[in-house]
Amino acid sequence: MSKKLTKRSEDYSKWYNELVVKADLAENSGVRGMMVIKPYGYAIWEKVQAELDRKFKETGHENAYFPLLIPKSYFTKEANHVKGFAKECAVVTHYRLKTADDGSIIVDEKAKLEEELIIRPTSETIIWDSYRKWIQSYRDLPIKINQWANVMRWEMRTRLFLRTAEFLWQEGHTAHATKNEAIEEAQLMHGIYADFLKDFMAIPVIKGEKTENERFGGALNTYTIEALMQDGKALQAGTSHFLGQNFAKAFDVKFTTNEGKQDYVWATSWGVTTRLIGALVMTHSDDQGLVLPPNLAPIQVVIVPIYRNDEQLDAISEVANKLMTQFKDKGISVKFDNRTTHKPGFKFAEYELKGVPLRIAIGPRDLENGTVELARRDTLTKEFVKQEDLLTKIPVLLATIQDELYQKALNYRNEHITEVNSMDEFKNVLENKGGFISAHWDGTVKTEKEIKKITKATIRCIPLGAENEEGKCILTGNKSKFRVLFAKAY
Amino acid sequence: MSKKLTKRSEDYSKWYNELVVKADLAENSGVRGMMVIKPYGYAIWEKVQAELDRKFKETGHENAYFPLLIPKSYFTKEANHVKGFAKECAVVTHYRLKTADDGSIIVDEKAKLEEELIIRPTSETIIWDSYRKWIQSYRDLPIKINQWANVMRWEMRTRLFLRTAEFLWQEGHTAHATKNEAIEEAQLMHGIYADFLKDFMAIPVIKGEKTENERFGGALNTYTIEALMQDGKALQAGTSHFLGQNFAKAFDVKFTTNEGKQDYVWATSWGVTTRLIGALVMTHSDDQGLVLPPNLAPIQVVIVPIYRNDEQLDAISEVANKLMTQFKDKGISVKFDNRTTHKPGFKFAEYELKGVPLRIAIGPRDLENGTVELARRDTLTKEFVKQEDLLTKIPVLLATIQDELYQKALNYRNEHITEVNSMDEFKNVLENKGGFISAHWDGTVKTEKEIKKITKATIRCIPLGAENEEGKCILTGNKSKFRVLFAKAY
Repeated sequence: MSKKLTKRSEDYSKWYNELVVKADLAENSGVRGMMVIKPYGYAIWEKVQAELDRKFKETGHENAYFPLLIPKSYFTKEANHVKGFAKECAVVTHYRLKTADDGSIIVDEKAKLEEELIIRPTSETIIWDSYRKWIQSYRDLPIKINQWANVMRWEMRTRLFLRTAEFLWQEGHTAHATKNEAIEEAQLMHGIYADFLKDFMAIPVIKGEKTENERFGGALNTYTIEALMQDGKALQAGTSHFLGQNFAKAFDVKFTTNEGKQDYVWATSWGVTTRLIGALVMTHSDDQGLVLPPNLAPIQVVIVPIYRNDEQLDAISEVANKLMTQFKDKGISVKFDNRTTHKPGFKFAEYELKGVPLRIAIGPRDLENGTVELARRDTLTKEFVKQEDLLTKIPVLLATIQDELYQKALNYRNEHITEVNSMDEFKNVLENKGGFISAHWDGTVKTEKEIKKITKATIRCIPLGAENEEGKCILTGNKSKFRVLFAKAY
Repeated sequence: MSKKLTKRSEDYSKWYNELVVKADLAENSGVRGMMVIKPYGYAIWEKVQAELDRKFKETGHENAYFPLLIPKSYFTKEANHVKGFAKECAVVTHYRLKTADDGSIIVDEKAKLEEELIIRPTSETIIWDSYRKWIQSYRDLPIKINQWANVMRWEMRTRLFLRTAEFLWQEGHTAHATKNEAIEEAQLMHGIYADFLKDFMAIPVIKGEKTENERFGGALNTYTIEALMQDGKALQAGTSHFLGQNFAKAFDVKFTTNEGKQDYVWATSWGVTTRLIGALVMTHSDDQGLVLPPNLAPIQVVIVPIYRNDEQLDAISEVANKLMTQFKDKGISVKFDNRTTHKPGFKFAEYELKGVPLRIAIGPRDLENGTVELARRDTLTKEFVKQEDLLTKIPVLLATIQDELYQKALNYRNEHITEVNSMDEFKNVLENKGGFISAHWDGTVKTEKEIKKITKATIRCIPLGAENEEGKCILTGNKSKFRVLFAKAY
């Protein structure tokens, strides 16, 4: 396979698909709509997991594990919930294979389940069935549980990371004694997601609330973080839901308050998925390949030796090994690529494609001069640096790259929020510029759907703190009190 | 629910089931044979994961993720493999629900899959389908991948942790250029498992090979580690398989050797599961509850304040917080249980049930004397210790407990390996003493099955390094060259 990528300007979608595969992040499996996450892609996910898990535990959450399969009768208990997921459910109907008379292996019709089981598309129903047993009194509250798991939503059109039938995620499910406490929890996790995207993924997000039409099935309010990709399309990067008492009512989860009364429990749920890796790729990468922010890069620094004979390689290895030890002591992940089966040019191209933030090349002349060639992946710039200066320079440079990636993405995003005041303007901006469109809307589902039908753009969110601004809906001309953000979205 | 446990001597099986639930490790869900792993149980699993993951990476393995669902046609490619798992497969046949005319939610028959999908009982087939694409040349080898995942085997009789329809595990899948390299890999992982059980779980194991009859479906050799529970039954705690070229042939995975020839790739796979937590419970715990080895205990030290008024609680809290900081700096996980809703006696019983290795109680008199009461969970002994001595004493004591738990389990295990030379002796030991029975066997599957039929005991393993010893099979009297270990098993 050629390592050369399609250019973004030629075909953004093709560029993305090629990049994910060529950079060894993931590939399609033989199973429709399901991907294989390859070691390099999974290493990024592990970094995402480690940091989020730390933040969840720091804020008093514990991990647990609930069953993969949900009885159909549980799943259908909350009407809006089932409406949201019924069309994309994988259903288990049998529990045995057998050998047919002709020797082939077939499903054993005698092993048919009495009640079908659904592969979880999300776990509210199976979890609230347990919470009923766990919660009697206000003393049992709050319960703050998170689960790292695989889930399945049978999507018809799938794309690596962005939309796959099976994906990996975390799902938090909390139970509270009061409405306010549950809302605060949903908002807290909303903030944790936004901070994580900013500080680790170098992705700026807009924090907002979903419209009723775009809410999670069963939620009273959905908080979302919305990112903007380089092609001007938005991507929902994480959501946190205030579920009210909907699931408590569906599963009859009551508790005795500290005044001795009976009340239904208040709930939240919140999640981010492997889709984040798609967002990471589409925010920072370029026509040469991936660009990874140092805080999530599996390899932060790679050292490539340039040599003509074993003697030179030995001398370079000595320097490299010394640097490796120093870097590792500072918590920098570093790789020395001393493969003799590949040439330096090949290695340079490979690490460029894989987005390793910093590359150190050491050749015979560097040995004489006590220098190395240091190259930045994000800017593709190079400089010669004294070996003795590397230990202080590298951490600073990694932090600089992290900041600059964020700033670059933020500038792009900010340049792509456009206020419009008519449908013509709306269509014009959508077609020629893309990005978020800030516009007045009359607050009805009907108008929202009509605009989507005309333009394919959806309301991404009502931004938090949207200012009071009297205006007229761009479609109906009806009164509006604040602007919302529209965009075409992944 | 009463916190009082059934005694082991009364009903070992009931004791186990009650303990797992009362200690908040896990419980049955509303889905047949599937458990909910509760936060306290999951925290132990996280400790298992962290340590094994570290060992896997240290030995050059990478994590990845492959699809949950396997097309039936992949699954059936390796004949012995499908024979091993066909009877316990959950089968997905549809991908959508719909609303029926009467308003109920039913499976949409129009959304029937052309080919049924199997929920992975293990991932050899789906992974080797990918390896075919990844491997062309010896330069692509070895591939050493591990996956942390859920799998499903439809068991009819299930027990929390020990045997559940869904369980969590890790599965390693490696591909090698030579037979020897693959065998060495399988043996390396076998050793890593044995060391982990010894050093972290304080469980002694016997390392051995499975007989042909007990091998993993598709393996040429299965290495096993066998532990002994307190009721004299054995438990297979982990297995590592040398798969030969079976999966490479089934999935047509060939490579060009460094001599330019074509050959099939050599394979291994290896795994341990959440069953380990069942083994942990059954090895060390007693009639008062769990006994956890310090190296896997989510809480290693708990501090309980004993007070009559707020003033005393404040003074105790000050001491406790100082200790907490000191302990945490030393990497000791410590909890200060300052709940005002529960009395000290309740808390003592709770941490005893949950197997926290060390309990520190601080009362008003301790404040005066500068002491604490320090209690060991494993021995149920108490002593008064100067507060200033705790920081040096606690780490030593935790290490001592870890060692003594292992020694105790090892002594029990060693006392329960009995050599027998006749079927009468065999039956007698099995009935009256239990444990491993070391006996001669003629090496045939027929005899093995016959002994199982008569006694319910199976050959747990052919111990590594079983010594040449001429003998006669206890059942047939035929020649035998070494002894094997029989036992009843979980």
